[in-house]
Amino acid sequence: MRKRYYNVERSARTSGKGKYQILKRLLRHRRSSIFELAADYDGTLIELTRDLEALIGEGAIKERNGVFQLRRESIPEHYKKLIRLEEELNRNFDEVSLVRRFKQITSGRPKPKKEHWQGFMSAESAVRRARFIHERCDDCLSRILLIGDDDLVSVAISLFGQAEEIVVLDIDEELVHYINQIASEHNFWIRAFPYDARSPLPKAFRNYFDAFVTEPPETLRGLRLFLSRGFQSLQGTGSAGYFGLTHIEASLRKWKRIEHFILSSGFVITDLLRDSARYPEKENAWEDLYAKYPIVQRWNAKPPKIDWYRSSLIRIEAVEQIKVRNVSVRSPAELFVDHESWATDNVFYSMNFQK
Amino acid sequence: MRKRYYNVERSARTSGKGKYQILKRLLRHRRSSIFELAADYDGTLIELTRDLEALIGEGAIKERNGVFQLRRESIPEHYKKLIRLEEELNRNFDEVSLVRRFKQITSGRPKPKKEHWQGFMSAESAVRRARFIHERCDDCLSRILLIGDDDLVSVAISLFGQAEEIVVLDIDEELVHYINQIASEHNFWIRAFPYDARSPLPKAFRNYFDAFVTEPPETLRGLRLFLSRGFQSLQGTGSAGYFGLTHIEASLRKWKRIEHFILSSGFVITDLLRDSARYPEKENAWEDLYAKYPIVQRWNAKPPKIDWYRSSLIRIEAVEQIKVRNVSVRSPAELFVDHESWATDNVFYSMNFQK
Repeated sequence: MRKRYYNVERSARTSGKGKYQILKRLLRHRRSSIFELAADYDGTLIELTRDLEALIGEGAIKERNGVFQLRRESIPEHYKKLIRLEEELNRNFDEVSLVRRFKQITSGRPKPKKEHWQGFMSAESAVRRARFIHERCDDCLSRILLIGDDDLVSVAISLFGQAEEIVVLDIDEELVHYINQIASEHNFWIRAFPYDARSPLPKAFRNYFDAFVTEPPETLRGLRLFLSRGFQSLQGTGSAGYFGLTHIEASLRKWKRIEHFILSSGFVITDLLRDSARYPEKENAWEDLYAKYPIVQRWNAKPPKIDWYRSSLIRIEAVEQIKVRNVSVRSPAELFVDHESWATDNVFYSMNFQK
Repeated sequence: MRKRYYNVERSARTSGKGKYQILKRLLRHRRSSIFELAADYDGTLIELTRDLEALIGEGAIKERNGVFQLRRESIPEHYKKLIRLEEELNRNFDEVSLVRRFKQITSGRPKPKKEHWQGFMSAESAVRRARFIHERCDDCLSRILLIGDDDLVSVAISLFGQAEEIVVLDIDEELVHYINQIASEHNFWIRAFPYDARSPLPKAFRNYFDAFVTEPPETLRGLRLFLSRGFQSLQGTGSAGYFGLTHIEASLRKWKRIEHFILSSGFVITDLLRDSARYPEKENAWEDLYAKYPIVQRWNAKPPKIDWYRSSLIRIEAVEQIKVRNVSVRSPAELFVDHESWATDNVFYSMNFQK
């Protein structure tokens, strides 16, 4: 009778995230029914069943009369770290405390540099992003790569304390130094390295990570380049990517081409959260840059008095072999400026596209 | 100097939604800067600029010293309806009042029928869905089609009072009658008709709507069938679709095939909100159905004590000519049951797939 359910395609979730979600639920609630487990599980009921069977087989959990529980006496060594982390980290994860802590830690953050087209999201946005990653269990004992991180999301992820290893690659050496300093002061397992995304991804970082996080430039080429580096960094099926994209400087036609690029690289889009990140005008102090934006020139506009710039968060997950294609980019202008980049210094636009 | 910005591809947003978003902002705030307008606008800065230029040209708004305002004295007739609606509808749109009103109106709703595989989302979820549609301006003076509506989202949309015409197609004649009754009692512009999604879409409803809303069955064939009916109902570029999809009964591999189907039909995915709808156990009273679910049979489970079933909301928008493909389905089982439907009456599964 039970046999017949097993005539199914192999699960796409081979990364252990599902098992971790089950263990975390049982740590928090001790006793759970199948439906309570399903409420905190991201996959299908078949995948849940398969993960439960595996955990029972390994001696990590038991089931009796429809109630699931941990088996602390026989839980395998490789799950103990997660359990230790969960129990040690009995911290206050509410929004306000986390944002306060993030702001304390990053109070000395460098100002955005226009030569690197920087501009960082609010502390609230960075913490919200890290929480979303945490809820998906993409940080559970995992390796996370940040391709560019003036947003300091690496620090926000560290506050949840579950990632095994965080690597930041950024073109800005001052930022790299700053992040390494924070990491050693606060005992975070982050290592930052200088890296220009136009160069090939170092071999040691290929097929290595469980998740990548990036805020790519919004030209088609810039998006493809940063995403390709991310794709190449991942281990494979079950690995996840997080990136930001705006409606402000990217049309829906461009969105569609990027979505097609994602699907044809072996990924599925699992989440797409509108206006998930806000960019605070005051802290970024962009005033002197605004004069160069096409939108300001067109309407003779004064600098904004509200935080109007925002971006959507897109989460993708690999469901088959990841395809990495070659994207080559020569000048920074090619990365950052196209006919839609109306809130970007357009000096290169006239230089490169108007002659 | 200004000329050069116009060497761009034509906007994908031809539906007037952008202009409506601008007018609504100016109605609420009277005077707005370009950045304040951008904060409430869904498109790119180029599209915003083009819409502003058109509105200025039509005499609907004016701009002076970087401040935009309505020109009530010369606003064209076809915008007046929106303005009248906005001003009349100076209603309390807060969550609590809307949910209370929705529950009052729908207190006599029919119980879900298992012969139609029904099960409705919570009042909170229906109102949240309608609000999201409203924020995107997909209801602004527009025509909306609901393909199946035991969730009564048509009623929730009506509470915002901006849709010009709402059509509900549902297989359940009792529900059709009930919705028509509510519409005439509360003076909502909803018309409901009996319709089996396996039949072709009536000609009068093709290429007619600005948006469709549906909660398709979760087999690949069911998803494709319902979405195809939705695609065929839409006018074209700029039209939008809203549909629900779960992780509970649809694997990421299936998600990917559906996303590919969406892109190759001329749409882009603009939003994907995880767990946006919850399904209340108590009101749906599914107890006697649970015994037939594979998940219950596998784990010998008792009926759930929590609202565990939830679905993600996906919004799509047409950015090019919509392609409608033929999807044929014979039996209801083909629509509702496959190897992943573990929270569905599986009687047909054994009948059709196990011989």
